[in-house]
Amino acid sequence: MRLYLEIFEQPKRLNELLVNQRGAVERVADEVRKQDLQYVFLAARGSSDNAGRYANYLLGSENGLVLALATPSLFTYYHKPPILKNALVIGISQSGQSPDIISVLKDGKRQNCLTLALTNMFGSPLAKNADFVLELQAGPEDAVAATKTYTAELIMLAMLSSALRGEKKAWQQLEQVSGWVGQVLQLDGFIAKAVQRYRNMQQCVVLGRGYNYSTAFEWALKLKELTYISAEAYSSADFMHGPIAIVDGGFPVLVVAPKGKVFVSQMEAMRYL
Amino acid sequence: MRLYLEIFEQPKRLNELLVNQRGAVERVADEVRKQDLQYVFLAARGSSDNAGRYANYLLGSENGLVLALATPSLFTYYHKPPILKNALVIGISQSGQSPDIISVLKDGKRQNCLTLALTNMFGSPLAKNADFVLELQAGPEDAVAATKTYTAELIMLAMLSSALRGEKKAWQQLEQVSGWVGQVLQLDGFIAKAVQRYRNMQQCVVLGRGYNYSTAFEWALKLKELTYISAEAYSSADFMHGPIAIVDGGFPVLVVAPKGKVFVSQMEAMRYL
Repeated sequence: MRLYLEIFEQPKRLNELLVNQRGAVERVADEVRKQDLQYVFLAARGSSDNAGRYANYLLGSENGLVLALATPSLFTYYHKPPILKNALVIGISQSGQSPDIISVLKDGKRQNCLTLALTNMFGSPLAKNADFVLELQAGPEDAVAATKTYTAELIMLAMLSSALRGEKKAWQQLEQVSGWVGQVLQLDGFIAKAVQRYRNMQQCVVLGRGYNYSTAFEWALKLKELTYISAEAYSSADFMHGPIAIVDGGFPVLVVAPKGKVFVSQMEAMRYL
Repeated sequence: MRLYLEIFEQPKRLNELLVNQRGAVERVADEVRKQDLQYVFLAARGSSDNAGRYANYLLGSENGLVLALATPSLFTYYHKPPILKNALVIGISQSGQSPDIISVLKDGKRQNCLTLALTNMFGSPLAKNADFVLELQAGPEDAVAATKTYTAELIMLAMLSSALRGEKKAWQQLEQVSGWVGQVLQLDGFIAKAVQRYRNMQQCVVLGRGYNYSTAFEWALKLKELTYISAEAYSSADFMHGPIAIVDGGFPVLVVAPKGKVFVSQMEAMRYL
């Protein structure tokens, strides 16, 4: 029930975030523009790591920025962190408590990088170790599975991308998002009926590509956390490169297939199923 | 049977590679040293992508190099590639035919990056689109599942790391690898007995961390390709951050747990199972 309520908080939270945090995001963008930035180095776990997968495509396509996902064990176990010259170091964590992610930000600071935390907890250790903090303002997260904090992370990353581009049009598009989320939530009853078919599913794979590579990972993670079934996410391209071998008659394959640039790729994948 | 024979070719192939390709690898390293290199941008699929995961830890810890895994759809579908300034662009593909990977190398060249192909096929399109080619010399791969080409990719990446460091000791260690591989292959009969317990396993997860994050992914991929069971790989840290929810009494969890820096992390993960 708490989960259900948190899901329905999303349109309001997203809208508030856009209004309240735009100034903070633009200050970060101003500072980033002053740097001789070569790439983004991003550390996160779980749902936040999936938000990082979204950032990989978004910052790459809209801002021309290469994004490298951090390997925290190089910082925490091997004690041999890579050289982070001219990197923007971003840590994302709802609680701001994850020691791994904090280690990466600390090391970014030690190496004189600009560091940025995205967190729901302004006074957290992660926030304290960052030059800039963007607060997710999602309110208390009481359900075990992250929902509203995940979408808050996505819109915050989209706000950062828009601020770095400095285009009015990008901001106008973002203003429409909370309305679209509200429309999807109205499909609640329809969705409850549609999923009956999968009631006794024991395992599945989830495919997505491009911007929705992250969606496939987050969908699979929610299925695991909430229903305990084995759900593995792939890009449709990677899936066809081997793992498709596991698909037999009746094996459930869930596909994120919106119209768009990678639609053809998704359809190709489905042709082989 | 072909698979079995290819597995047993490994000690010989690895040794030959070390002898025959050292000069070529050192020429690449000399050229890399001349660049104002900021990071490595690596494109690959399937087993080769897992070799890329190994490179991420190896080049990070031993050479201080940040590695970003490429997002090929930004090149092939969105046509909005990121800016690859001061990057070494590496493409890995056994066949050298993968259009996605070729696209990334082509774009690296267009952006004046140094480009490097690791492939088993010297005359392939991937090789033709690279400034430097390192040939895997694994011989024909007739089995469906890559084995000897995967380990050839690993040792080639380790050779590149050694050449970039220019330390004699690193090369001496590499010279021992083919002997160690031979010793493991002698465990053949023991392994055949040990796996009986898993004969009717329908799904599992595979955990690894640090250098063996790649091993976990490759192990899971082989299980999928060869036995059609659902096997998902995780770093033990990511696994504890949510997906551990799927583990119930009797659920098989395979762990790569060598002695070493991340041993403690693996043991922590197992404590929760």
